[in-house]
Amino acid sequence: MKEFDFIKSIKQSTYSQPSVIKGVGDDAAVFRQGHADIVTAVDTFVEGVHFTKETMGVYDVGYRALAANISDIAAMGATPVMYLVSVVFPNTWTAQERLHLMNGMKELAQAYRMDMIGGDTVAGDTFVLSVTIIGYVHASKVRYRSTAQENDVVFVTGTLGDAAAGLSILLNEVDGIKYDKYFIHRHIRPTPRITFAEALHTIDRVTLNDVSDGIASEATEIAQASHVDIYLSDEKVPVSRHYNQFPPSQQYNWKYFGGEDFEMLGTVARRDWETVQLAAKITGVDVTEIGTVTSGSGKVYLEQNGSTKPLPKKGYQH
Amino acid sequence: MKEFDFIKSIKQSTYSQPSVIKGVGDDAAVFRQGHADIVTAVDTFVEGVHFTKETMGVYDVGYRALAANISDIAAMGATPVMYLVSVVFPNTWTAQERLHLMNGMKELAQAYRMDMIGGDTVAGDTFVLSVTIIGYVHASKVRYRSTAQENDVVFVTGTLGDAAAGLSILLNEVDGIKYDKYFIHRHIRPTPRITFAEALHTIDRVTLNDVSDGIASEATEIAQASHVDIYLSDEKVPVSRHYNQFPPSQQYNWKYFGGEDFEMLGTVARRDWETVQLAAKITGVDVTEIGTVTSGSGKVYLEQNGSTKPLPKKGYQH
Repeated sequence: MKEFDFIKSIKQSTYSQPSVIKGVGDDAAVFRQGHADIVTAVDTFVEGVHFTKETMGVYDVGYRALAANISDIAAMGATPVMYLVSVVFPNTWTAQERLHLMNGMKELAQAYRMDMIGGDTVAGDTFVLSVTIIGYVHASKVRYRSTAQENDVVFVTGTLGDAAAGLSILLNEVDGIKYDKYFIHRHIRPTPRITFAEALHTIDRVTLNDVSDGIASEATEIAQASHVDIYLSDEKVPVSRHYNQFPPSQQYNWKYFGGEDFEMLGTVARRDWETVQLAAKITGVDVTEIGTVTSGSGKVYLEQNGSTKPLPKKGYQH
Repeated sequence: MKEFDFIKSIKQSTYSQPSVIKGVGDDAAVFRQGHADIVTAVDTFVEGVHFTKETMGVYDVGYRALAANISDIAAMGATPVMYLVSVVFPNTWTAQERLHLMNGMKELAQAYRMDMIGGDTVAGDTFVLSVTIIGYVHASKVRYRSTAQENDVVFVTGTLGDAAAGLSILLNEVDGIKYDKYFIHRHIRPTPRITFAEALHTIDRVTLNDVSDGIASEATEIAQASHVDIYLSDEKVPVSRHYNQFPPSQQYNWKYFGGEDFEMLGTVARRDWETVQLAAKITGVDVTEIGTVTSGSGKVYLEQNGSTKPLPKKGYQH
């Protein structure tokens, strides 16, 4: 039941994080954290559900899985520091593919000075990758989704719908697309908004969710957890330069219900909005005001073409 | 990518651990630990590899998976406090079965006042359960496998081979077995040796491994990590009262190479052996001296019928 030799064989020779006391190699890993709070989450990726080998190379699978986890940590306002992996490898996976998978994670991990401190690999029919991530955050700077308040500015980083467009291109659902590489890259190599979220540390209260299930779903989660309503303005929702080449119904579906852009959706008091914009600027991220928070009971509305309609919480379906 | 509604639907209404700040319900869980070191490990269970629905009910699958994880924490000398789960559910699993799985974990969790602080469930063809466990330990009392020293007493708790015998009975490999329920229970409901391992806290140095892959493998891990040799005496290796009804070759294989008894294999200085025996007594666990540590280079030898032979490191094959 303990990590097999594969995990030991790819064990790091040194650890970047001084808090790691024991990484891979015993019954469990050990770390020490006396000052910050500890943030942890787990995400699972199944071949045939979250990706196929046709749409993504195994290196990208590793990269993207860890990126998704790091995005969760960003949405808590925390800094990612360590991760553990659990992999079910079908016998058809070659030794090189297994290594590529781990290296895809490692590339991103090194960019954030994260350490792989443990893992478990077993054989099975279907490839499953489960990543547990651990981050640190100053106690007063955890960003919960339950803290949105009336009159907050609603903002989002980057552009929306691109990752879903990229997946659609990979699945050959759309044809003759210009700048297809851009959209595909957005799908297979998402950039977690860690530096942006960290740069908000001077602000006392920011509500954050990462966009893993489309902003309709994410905004609803904030509205419900905070007991407020959220109004989004369709004309303000940011899309990329060449997004308008897709059919309008797809544009609409992807930007509101398309999963896995891994941008940050947030709300903040109007007086702190300028600080958010500054944080975006110094971390090289675009940020756009897309709506407002009102008193309410957990609903999200979309203002479009002069009318206001409820935006249903239908998330991304894998 | 965040936990689906299923995990939220089984969210605990309160948490037992005061260190849990935020459990299920945001992008990640948050906890605080200013005094102890933190211990963490992940274990994965695949249907058809680690169990089949013929050999084990889903409640037992949950119970046993968490027990295996808790056993890893015990082997570090730590106290289990929290866990996160990741489950791939085939569509054939009913709502009731999913709940039974979680309740199997919950029963054991409650016995140790552990909290489920996060999780992720996705659909897939094959059932996979991955549990990440978190424990706390006083910094100077972590029990690494690399600390065995020459002249140490080698000991083991409980009896060995019973879980493998139980599995064999469930798989109908053996017939006409008396006390079959005892052996089956040992397989499906292992008892992690947490209280015993915790009761060793007055001893400065104890080397511990949990027996998840047979003692041949576990003893080799200790010998290799500690750069010593270990001599085991076959006649001292404890087996249960009715173990001798099985064919001798199976008895031998199961007790040395049979996995998942989840007993504690350890080494300790001779002067502390009495304290280990006392710890066993007050926690209601049997402990037996089964060998000694000598200077060496990572090998394990078995003394049997007057001769001494190397004991190969062949662990339990799922």
